[in-house]
Parts: sequence; structure tokens; C-alpha cells
Amino acid sequence: MFRKIQSLLLGKTLKTTDLHGEKFSVLWGLPVLSSDAISSVAYASEEILLVLIPILGLAAYKPMLYVAIAITVLLLILVFSYRQTIDNYPHGGGSYIVASENLGKGAGLVAAASLTIDYMLTVAVSTCAGTAAITSAFPALLQHRTIITVAVIGILAIGNLRGMKDSAKLFGIPTYLFMFCIIAMIVTGIFKVVVLGETPAQAPTLKQTGESLGLVLFLKAFAAGCTALTGVEAVSDGIPNFRDPAQKNAKRVLGLLAVIVFIIFGGVSFLATMYKVSPRPDITVTAQIATQIFGSGSIMFYAVQATTAIILIMAANTAFADLPLLLSILAKDGYVPRQFASRGKRLGFSNGIVMLFLVASTLVIAVGADTHLLLPLYAVGVFMSFTLSQFGMFMKWYKSKEGKWKHKAAINGFGALVTAVTCVIIGSTKFIHGAWIIFLLIPFFVLVMTRVRRHYNKVRDNLKIDTDVSQLIKKCKVSNHIIVPIQTLNKSFIKSLNYALAIGDTIEVYHVSTNDEDTAKLQEKYNKLGVDIPLVIDHAPYRNVNETLLKYIDKKQSEFDSNETITIVMPQFVIRKWWHQTLHNQTSLFLRTAIMKRRNINIVTIPYIINE
Amino acid sequence: MFRKIQSLLLGKTLKTTDLHGEKFSVLWGLPVLSSDAISSVAYASEEILLVLIPILGLAAYKPMLYVAIAITVLLLILVFSYRQTIDNYPHGGGSYIVASENLGKGAGLVAAASLTIDYMLTVAVSTCAGTAAITSAFPALLQHRTIITVAVIGILAIGNLRGMKDSAKLFGIPTYLFMFCIIAMIVTGIFKVVVLGETPAQAPTLKQTGESLGLVLFLKAFAAGCTALTGVEAVSDGIPNFRDPAQKNAKRVLGLLAVIVFIIFGGVSFLATMYKVSPRPDITVTAQIATQIFGSGSIMFYAVQATTAIILIMAANTAFADLPLLLSILAKDGYVPRQFASRGKRLGFSNGIVMLFLVASTLVIAVGADTHLLLPLYAVGVFMSFTLSQFGMFMKWYKSKEGKWKHKAAINGFGALVTAVTCVIIGSTKFIHGAWIIFLLIPFFVLVMTRVRRHYNKVRDNLKIDTDVSQLIKKCKVSNHIIVPIQTLNKSFIKSLNYALAIGDTIEVYHVSTNDEDTAKLQEKYNKLGVDIPLVIDHAPYRNVNETLLKYIDKKQSEFDSNETITIVMPQFVIRKWWHQTLHNQTSLFLRTAIMKRRNINIVTIPYIINE
Repeated sequence: MFRKIQSLLLGKTLKTTDLHGEKFSVLWGLPVLSSDAISSVAYASEEILLVLIPILGLAAYKPMLYVAIAITVLLLILVFSYRQTIDNYPHGGGSYIVASENLGKGAGLVAAASLTIDYMLTVAVSTCAGTAAITSAFPALLQHRTIITVAVIGILAIGNLRGMKDSAKLFGIPTYLFMFCIIAMIVTGIFKVVVLGETPAQAPTLKQTGESLGLVLFLKAFAAGCTALTGVEAVSDGIPNFRDPAQKNAKRVLGLLAVIVFIIFGGVSFLATMYKVSPRPDITVTAQIATQIFGSGSIMFYAVQATTAIILIMAANTAFADLPLLLSILAKDGYVPRQFASRGKRLGFSNGIVMLFLVASTLVIAVGADTHLLLPLYAVGVFMSFTLSQFGMFMKWYKSKEGKWKHKAAINGFGALVTAVTCVIIGSTKFIHGAWIIFLLIPFFVLVMTRVRRHYNKVRDNLKIDTDVSQLIKKCKVSNHIIVPIQTLNKSFIKSLNYALAIGDTIEVYHVSTNDEDTAKLQEKYNKLGVDIPLVIDHAPYRNVNETLLKYIDKKQSEFDSNETITIVMPQFVIRKWWHQTLHNQTSLFLRTAIMKRRNINIVTIPYIINE
Repeated sequence: MFRKIQSLLLGKTLKTTDLHGEKFSVLWGLPVLSSDAISSVAYASEEILLVLIPILGLAAYKPMLYVAIAITVLLLILVFSYRQTIDNYPHGGGSYIVASENLGKGAGLVAAASLTIDYMLTVAVSTCAGTAAITSAFPALLQHRTIITVAVIGILAIGNLRGMKDSAKLFGIPTYLFMFCIIAMIVTGIFKVVVLGETPAQAPTLKQTGESLGLVLFLKAFAAGCTALTGVEAVSDGIPNFRDPAQKNAKRVLGLLAVIVFIIFGGVSFLATMYKVSPRPDITVTAQIATQIFGSGSIMFYAVQATTAIILIMAANTAFADLPLLLSILAKDGYVPRQFASRGKRLGFSNGIVMLFLVASTLVIAVGADTHLLLPLYAVGVFMSFTLSQFGMFMKWYKSKEGKWKHKAAINGFGALVTAVTCVIIGSTKFIHGAWIIFLLIPFFVLVMTRVRRHYNKVRDNLKIDTDVSQLIKKCKVSNHIIVPIQTLNKSFIKSLNYALAIGDTIEVYHVSTNDEDTAKLQEKYNKLGVDIPLVIDHAPYRNVNETLLKYIDKKQSEFDSNETITIVMPQFVIRKWWHQTLHNQTSLFLRTAIMKRRNINIVTIPYIINE
């Protein structure tokens, strides 16, 4: 039943050698990996206006354009800086790898922790914003936004569990439609004002406040808008997902991404200025612009809303493509549980996908699908990892001193400087609104990762064979002493005893008595068996049968030397129906766990199937 | 740490032979077992008024007294009927036992299901009413009533886990204080009106409605008041808890119970009539009477409220004493999970106590500590079990036809008739208000109990030895074929291989390859071991290592005859810190479960302790 549902949702299992077929071309890689950056227009412009309008009123629109230009310039610097990373890291140049190699493991882990947090936030923020686009078109759905958002995250998780190529096709076409719709909106909007000479309806509530743009206000608006740049890392992180030539394709996608963001983010910010739109809680800025340009019931209005919702969902999908990949790299290095490194039935990193679904859904439910509560946490982490990555590249060139190293170091150094300054700006302006949480979480994640790694190292050291391997096989015969515990003389005991007879050198049957009468009956029955094996009886007045048995085992073990080994033979009932399990004492499980801790006691489990 | 807290809360572990010391005298048995019935005054009078006042207004008080008298008469009939049960069932004559023996197992199970449901409801209803007594005195606590009630249930559970005698002393004295306070209230109340000639302040909202008492209304009020009688079963169910002579002591307690309920329930109902009290949502009827008689800030008012709260908590404690006992009897008969039959550290039936705590707390939280939502569910079950029990006694006399059987049969037969009629009245008047749930739950519980029993019977039949026991031990030597799975050649594999060499007749090492390169390396390392054991390699292109191994085991098994047995030797890492467990794949657990289902494959577990 479960298998059928699973195969219906996920498709048939794929072979490891099918891996090559599941990679991106430029055409499909662009929508999957760049949507995070492109989708930013849906909330970045709005976030900038939310900072400026309450203070500047009608005078907010010109400064808004300046902020948008500053952010676009920052994007171009990042793209140039990252092109060099792609050239040098063909197997994926995420901040974790670049920072680890050039700045040391500590810096790498800080980058990894920052990115992990930001990918989780990307999913939560983008899907919430996607739902906001839907509820702007259909206000009746506003009360159901949490459930809608969680459902969307669930669909993304299933899509990604199905495998990469499928999901690329599933989401790629609507992304291109989004680009088309927004560009159509920009062209129409400008055409109407400039050529047809229409005057846009001014937002009625806005006043001239007389305040002017100060540096602090500019920086706050800039920090708010920087959420637009969170997706850039994705491309260089995802190089192994591209078809060959992977690096060239990745660089093409990065270049296209910059051009598209420049046109769309710049264009929408310009439209917001031209049409003087003001943020409202129930309808997004983009929806307001689309209403003014196309009319509120028009097909193009709904097209803009629908494709906006989808591109935002695509942005969340970026995180679903990339966080599991990052976790698998961390898992191979032993910093996160190994399970994140294994591919599922459809070759996706299933555990990472499922974990991301759980965390993002929890976040969405916790904030009631309201992006404004999550946005202050956002972007700090990503700029921290940008900085570490670019500074790592700078150190690489500086240390190598080969070829045009000065030119290259200058590009990455400048990138590092700019992102570091941005990181400080974001961290300080958003600190009290929630960014402090990130400054606690990053060191905590780093601590956990180092502890995990230490554990794996200990396990490896424990298991590693460092002497001559052929010396390890015991040459002399080891004598095997068997203890068969008995409570009642039944078929499962007989089965255990027969097995003990097959493998044991010496055998004893052991009983813990809590009731003299029952024990006498058992003794009598046992004598009828006619075997030459002693029945050892201990008493447990406090009804602690397991403890008494364990004490006996310890006593036995202390008497034995290294050429003797103790084996406990225990039956285990195999019960077909799950609820029947609850009808049996789980004492044998406790017993097994306790015996395990005793190092040199072996346990034989004799399955006894209960037929119904 | 956990053990320390446990021993602090529960006291030191007791021996099984200490059981005898934990029993009730009449003095302590009375408060523990009769408090359910006695405490009923706190809500039964109120429930009667809640039915009558909305229809009859000021004319409700005289009918209320009639209803109270009818219920007291019913109590006397029950006491006489139950005395005969105590005489004949020295080991506890709960409805389950009496109905099972005389009417058949089906009737017994219906009685058991009814009683189980009603004990659970007793705990929820009584603790909610106890909290209502507290919040009547301290209205500021009204908003916290759910948490207060759950805390009270928790304290009861801990008290009962500590053991019976302790809890009897803990609650006994306040119960006697309650009796004293209520009797003082009755005497003072009557004295003030009759001797001093005071005229009680009349409830201002009550009007003369002109309606009169019809039969339906009388029956509804009677049904509402019958919640007063839910505790009578407790005494005859709890005979084994009494000191010797247990039956005589139990009968004394039952007699005293009847006298006390007669005085207190009758007295309070009379006071309600005399002082014309009307139910209000924020303050109980008893609290209103106490206010009028003693004055609202007086010590006696608080004494009445405090002791009322405590007697109600005692009533819940009755269920904590009795439901685990009933469950232990059912468990010994195999109708509920065996775990309910085992005594805990302090000789209480721990699992029953914990289960009751969980169910009652859930009920309280679900209804927000409001008794009025639970009361319609209440009492139907208990009267169903009364009827079955009394009818069972009737059948017993009728079948035996010994001695004064006609006299005895008449008493029990009359009891059965009266309780059956009451059961129909309660069931029909409360049906749409929630009693229908009980009529669904009882058959469901009966179904589950028969299924549980069927499972235990199947297990017993599977394990039972029905042939000559000495024939079962295999005489000829069984050949043991060992499979040692390998993923990497490390110390835990060597430990497993060494054990295999000690017990095996033939051995093979088995590897599932998911990657040719790794397998080649493994083969090379293995060759260096210098053992004469074949390394079998299978390939798993779909990464399903476990399935491949299982398929191989199945193939091997099909080739073997009955004098050969297959054993899988597997290492298991023992990891000290619980969170480190999560860092390892649980594949060996899945593998073990799957192998178990194969009937004749034995598993040897070699513990390998990871030192940190």
C-alpha cells in the first residue's frame, strides 16, 4: 500500500548509472537556479518602499530608485566575482568549499551554517510571498494562507523527491511566462505614460512630509532590498547539476541571470516610482502596479499574479535543489549525519529534501505565513557566506601569485569588501528585529557540526585496522559458553535450546524466579526434557528479572578468560500485525540493549513466528 | 538522574512479599473506597436543580426533595444487593467477575467495558468538580481551571504509584473533615431556621412559573441525580484490598457508606430546598448554601469548600485504586494487554495508573474542565454494570436452588430490575446529549478485548508443547552455515568473522556492491586476510543493499535441508550518547526485522562499543 502510493508520487526507482541523464541544460538550468534572484522583485521593491514611505511620504520614490540602482550594481559586482569561482571550482564552488579550502575549515563551517539557515528561510519566505501573490488576486483565500503555503512546500518536496529534470520542466515554462508578463507590464506601463501621455492615479493617502533622505534611512532601505540577491550563490553551488560543459553553461546562466534581474528589478522599481504605489497589507505592490496598468479584472492582471506566485515557488525550489546538495557535501566530509549523503529512489538526496520540508513548514506555521516576521532574519546569513566565499577567492589569488593574479584578486577582493560592508549594514539595521537570532544560530550550528565530525572520526578510529590484517584472525579455538534464559518451557525455548546445542561448547539454562510455585512446576517440566544441561535458578524478590539476569552474566564474564566467549540465545516473537506488538512486554528489547553495552557478550536471536 | 527523581516521587522499591502490609482497615478503607458516592453531594444536588429550576422555577424545591429521596432509596436497594455479592466473592466481586461467571463471558465483557469507561469519566468529572469547589472560593483561579485539574490528576497518579496505604492516609483525614463540615453545615442550617426562626434570603431571579412536575421531568431529574451512585461498585470490587477479615470489613464499609450518603445527600438536598438555592455557572450550589449559613468570608465557608474539593479528589482516587485492579484482572484473563497485570516498584499496577492519568487528563483538556459536558456520558455505563452484576447474582441463586435461595434471589432480582429501569431512564433522557457515545464505545471496547484475547490464545497455541517433550530435542548434529555480510573491512567485521569461525561449520563472507571501484579495493584488502573463506559479491545497481542481501539469503535457504541452519553474523555499534545514534543509518535495524520474518534464519549480534 505504502509502496504503491510512493511509486505513484515519486515515479519508478532509478539506477545509480542513470545519474548522468538528470542534469540541466542552460535553458532549464536558468529557471531552476536563477528564480530566487529573479523572483525577488515580488518583495524586494515592496520592502524598500516599506522603509522609505512612512518617513518620506511622496518623496520616497526618487530615493527608491537610487536604492534599486545600488542593489543592481551590487548584483553586477557579485556576478563578476562569482564567474571566477565557477572557473576554478568545476565540482561546485559553494561558499563552504571555497572558504574551507582558502580560509580554513572554521570559515567554511561558518559559511555552511549561514547558507543552511538562509536556504531554509528562502523556502519559507518565498512560499509565503507566493501565497501573498495568490491572495492579492483572490482575497477570499487570505484566511487560508498558512495551509496553502504548507501545501505548496509539500508539493515542492514531492517534486524534488521525483528527481531534478522532471521538476525543471514542471516549473521552467511558467518562469519564462513570468519574465514575459513582467516585461510586457514594464513596456506597457512606460508606453502608456510616455507615449500616450496618461497620468497615473496617485495614491490618495500619501502626503509631502518635508523629510529628506539621510544616510541611515538609505542604508536601511538598502538592507531591506538586499533580500533580492539571495539566489546568486545557487548557480556556482550547482555546477555539478549542469550538462557538460558544466562550467561554461553555469557562467552563461549567471550572465543571463544578471541581465534579467537588471531588467525586471530595475523596471518594476521604475514603475513603482512612475505610478507612485504605496504598500498595503492585503495586496502586494506588484499587484497594485498590474492593476493600474492592465485594469483589475483583466487577463494580464491575473497572468502577472499567477506567474509571480509561480516564480516565487520556483525560488523555494532553488533551495530544494541546493540545500540537499550542500548537505550531501557536508555529510561526505562528516559534518552532518551521513544519511544526508545517500541518494533516494529517484536519485535526489531524499533526507535533505524531507528535512527542508519539515523545517520550512514549521517556520511558516509559526509565523502564520506572514513574510514580514521572517524577512529581518533573512539575507544576513547569505551575505556572510558571500563575504567568506569572495574573501576566500581573494586569498587564493594572493597566495598563488600566478598569471594575472592581481587582476583576479582585485575583482574578488572588491566583491568581498562590498559584501562585507553590506553584511554589516544588514546585521546592524535588522539586529533588534530578529537578526540576533541568526548570530546565535550560526555558532550553534558550527558547534554541532564539529561535534558530529568528532564523533565520526572517533568511530573511524575505533574501527580502523592499523596492524597487520592477517594477525587479527584468531588461530586457536575459542570456547563458546551459552546461556539460554527460560521463563516458561514452550516451543520457542525448545527452538533456542536446539540452536544452542548446535553451536555451544558448554551450555546452561538460566531461570529467574519471582514465584516459588511457578519455579517448581518449571523445574519438573524441565527434568522431563532429558537433556544433560544444568538449570540454574536465581531469585528476584523485587521482580527485577532483567537486572538479575544481567548481574549473572557479569559474574560469569568475570570468571572467563580471553579464549572463552559468552553467547546469550534468546527467542524473539515475530508478530505480523503491528497493533499486536503492543500486547507484548518489550522486556526483551531492554535486555538486548543492556547486554550490548557489555562488549564481549554475543546475542543470538532465534525468530519465532506466531501464526494467526 | 531519572532514577533519582523516580525514587524521590515514588519511594523505595517494595518486595512482592510486602504486598500483605499494603491493605485497608475499615477506618482507612471507608474514605478511599466510598468517597465517590459520598462526594456526589457536591454535584448531584446541583444537577437535579439544573433540570428542575428552568421549568418549575420556585416550585422546583419540593420535587427536588422527592428525587433525592428516590435516589437514596435506590442506594439502599443497591447496598442490600451488593452485601450478597461481597459474601460470595471473597476475591473481589466486580461486575466483570459476577457477570462472567453467571451470565457468560459476553455479559462480563460488557460490564468490564462499561466500568472501564465510567472509571475514566469518574476521574475527569470528580477532579473538574473539585476544581469548581476551589474556584467557587477563589474566583480568580477560574481561568486556570484546566491546568489546576490536570495537576490534581497528576498528583493522584503519583500518589497511587507510591502505593495504596500511603495514599489512604494522605487522603483519609480530610475526608473525615469533609463529613464533619457538611454535617455541621446541615445542623447549623436547620438550627438557624427552625430554632432561631431566621428567614433565608430568597434567590432573587426565581419566579413562580405555574408549571407542575410531570413524569418526564421527574425522570430527567432522577437520571441527572443518579450520578450520585457511581461509587458503590468500588467496595465490592476492592475486597482484596481490605485487611482480613476482608469480606466482613467490606460489608461494614458498605453499610457505613449508605448511612453517610443518606445523611449528607439527604441533608444537603433538604438545605437546598430550605434556602432555595439556584445553580449559577461561577459558584456551586454547595458554596451558595455555605455562604448563606456561615457567611461568605467565614472560616467554615472555606472549610466546606476545601474539604469538598478534597473529597471530590478522593472520588477520583477511588478510580485510581479500582480501575488498575479491574484491568489487572482482565489482563490475567488475557482481555487487555498483559502489561496491566504487572505490579510496579511500589506494588501498584503502574501501567493502569499511568494510562488512567493520560486518558482522564485528555478528557479534561478536551472539555476545558467543564463537568457539564461530561456528565451526560456519565452513569449510563455504571448502571449497565450494576444491572449485569445484580442479574448475574439472581441467576446464580436461581440455578443453585440451595438454602434460602428464593429470599436471596428476590433481593438481587429486585436490585437488577431497579437498576435496569434506571439504566433505561438515564440512557434515554441523556441519549442525544452524549450518551450515544457510550453506546458506541462499549461494543467497540468489547470487540477490542475479544481480539486481544484471541491473539493471546493464538500465541499460547503456537508455543504450547503437545507432544512428548523429550522428542523435541534434536538428536543428530545440525550443520550451521554462516553468512557474514561485509561493507568495509574494519575491526567490527573482524570481530564478527572471529565469532563465525568459532560457531560455524561452513562460512561465507557476502558483499553487496554499489560501486565497482570500492568493491575492487575491498576484494584486495580481503585477500590480505589470508583466510580460506569465499567472498561472495552481488551487485545492486538500484542501491537496494538490504533487498539484495535478503534475496541471497532466501536463495540459500531454498537450497538447504532440515539438518542445516543458516546464521547471519552482524556487528552492532554500541554508542553511548543518545544523540549520536541519530548519526548512524538504521539500516541494520531494518535488516534485522526483515530477516526475523524468514522463520529459520538465526541472527547473531556482535556488539562493538565505540569509545569516545
